[in-house]
Amino acid sequence: MATNTQVLFKSHPDGMPSPENFEIVTQETPALEDGQFLLENVYLSLDPYMRGRMNAARSYAKPVDIDDVMTGRTIAEVVESRDYSWQPGDKVLSTSGWQEYAVSRAKGLTRLDPEDLPLTIRLGVLGMPGLTAYTGLLNIGKPQPGETLVVAAATGPVGSTVGQIAKIKGARAVGIAGGPEKTRALTDEFGFDVGLDHREPDFAEKLAEACPDGIDIYFENVGGHVWRAVFPLLNDFARVPVCGQIAHTSAIEPPPDPDHVPELMRGILSKRLTLRGFIVTDFADQSGAFQRDMKGWLREGRVKYREDIVDGLENAPGAFIGLLKGRNFGKLIVRIGDKT
Amino acid sequence: MATNTQVLFKSHPDGMPSPENFEIVTQETPALEDGQFLLENVYLSLDPYMRGRMNAARSYAKPVDIDDVMTGRTIAEVVESRDYSWQPGDKVLSTSGWQEYAVSRAKGLTRLDPEDLPLTIRLGVLGMPGLTAYTGLLNIGKPQPGETLVVAAATGPVGSTVGQIAKIKGARAVGIAGGPEKTRALTDEFGFDVGLDHREPDFAEKLAEACPDGIDIYFENVGGHVWRAVFPLLNDFARVPVCGQIAHTSAIEPPPDPDHVPELMRGILSKRLTLRGFIVTDFADQSGAFQRDMKGWLREGRVKYREDIVDGLENAPGAFIGLLKGRNFGKLIVRIGDKT
Repeated sequence: MATNTQVLFKSHPDGMPSPENFEIVTQETPALEDGQFLLENVYLSLDPYMRGRMNAARSYAKPVDIDDVMTGRTIAEVVESRDYSWQPGDKVLSTSGWQEYAVSRAKGLTRLDPEDLPLTIRLGVLGMPGLTAYTGLLNIGKPQPGETLVVAAATGPVGSTVGQIAKIKGARAVGIAGGPEKTRALTDEFGFDVGLDHREPDFAEKLAEACPDGIDIYFENVGGHVWRAVFPLLNDFARVPVCGQIAHTSAIEPPPDPDHVPELMRGILSKRLTLRGFIVTDFADQSGAFQRDMKGWLREGRVKYREDIVDGLENAPGAFIGLLKGRNFGKLIVRIGDKT
Repeated sequence: MATNTQVLFKSHPDGMPSPENFEIVTQETPALEDGQFLLENVYLSLDPYMRGRMNAARSYAKPVDIDDVMTGRTIAEVVESRDYSWQPGDKVLSTSGWQEYAVSRAKGLTRLDPEDLPLTIRLGVLGMPGLTAYTGLLNIGKPQPGETLVVAAATGPVGSTVGQIAKIKGARAVGIAGGPEKTRALTDEFGFDVGLDHREPDFAEKLAEACPDGIDIYFENVGGHVWRAVFPLLNDFARVPVCGQIAHTSAIEPPPDPDHVPELMRGILSKRLTLRGFIVTDFADQSGAFQRDMKGWLREGRVKYREDIVDGLENAPGAFIGLLKGRNFGKLIVRIGDKT
């Protein structure tokens, strides 16, 4: 019987998580019953939404319970089966979380048929982050030729995809990232028209220079000070899909600024803005169109992606904390075991 | 030659306007040239948007210039004409502002044909406030049977119309007003399911009790502390048409609260809210449908309205300041002269 290394959720963080919020344990893998099969996780996706699941309060999804395995999507391989429709070697997209092995009854699984595209992109540009970018941008942002789109965390799997789809739709794309290396990649690697570093002291002025005709779409993926620089530049009838607030997720108390809600509401009125929150499951019915479009764009080389792969499940907590601090560069994935 | 009493805009108010921001003057009415005709204003509409026009900064419309006649819609009668297509006695809806007489070349006029409905409602429920309610509610609020709508300033021409159209569409309507007399009118006169007084100390608790299934539509017509009570009660996928911010319009500095923008943005995301600003001219193409529907509802007695008519142009500044303080009860109109 194989042992199963797991990362358990141990305590609710105050603000930024720390390694003490997690515990790495090793357990026996339970024996299979009829109709079950054993998955070996090969790749674990680490994503900002997981921080929300570590709060005690329910947001749009149930929090992780203390002592449960941390939640997460994986690419896994069937290694043992007592279900005749699943065979060892079958590859799946699963939600089996931060652990080496999981016993499954096929609930919540997507079978991954062999094809020309790499498996890992099912966790990124061809997975949940890509679908988030595609559905939020096309349903709420609605880019038109010649319009200006701005997105932050723009080397990440959501932001980089948003920018590239906006370009495909004929819009100008201004990307924002942290640090000179990521900022260079925005134009050199992902084809943004302009790349900006939000850590520069004159970031707000540079954003204004990069958007001489104002901003028509701000894909709100981060929250925080980027929003404050974007807000005065929004054009009449601008659209703001709101899908991430990672800059605020780890904050406890409202920041000690004056209350800017009145100013925001006046701006919404006078510029006739649309702010609309969404999560990817709201547009689950568009998954087929997304898969078709995105596979086409990937094969034509019109959408590029970058992955940041960390080895070893024991490094998942540290990698996740790094993600919240903006230390990863591309889609963050943990490689588990040696099946790759 | 008749003299023309006018109310001029004299200075930008700091916060709440005062009588000193206006000046009442009497001038000679200019002689008519060929193609011109003379309008005598009979009713002047006073509306919250006028406060925005008194700021130096442009909002969605050009500010009034110092020493110009205050801007405003009127119902007027042609009293002299050198344009063969306009005859003395013709009634029009005009934008000739806070004055007794205006020389016109027919620009911006709507001829009012005699019909069974009273003329004054062209300034209220069948005019710009009614169209604001109709288009904002139907295009952005999208009420569904069984949903809960909340609107403030609910005895006013926009709020009372919003509530009644929501009822016609099968939603529950909760109205908010200031003071016991207006609050009683919400249920007794306008047919709201619940009427609440926002001045009561336990207003937030009462709003929660009045909305046991949460709030699906908040028609944001006022800004300020009503929004703070509404926000936690909004349901997933709630819609917030934003058309008025009168509580903030007279404020200069951000209030000394902590910054609630991060909380608002988190709420937009986790509840997938839609906040969308609009002004009535954005939906000008729906004016025909509105006129048809609203005339039907008025004739069937399904939409009621209340007017607050003040006599004398010299009382317009005081009445307008009262409007900003919530002292009027129903659509505020100034009767000018004796043509009614």
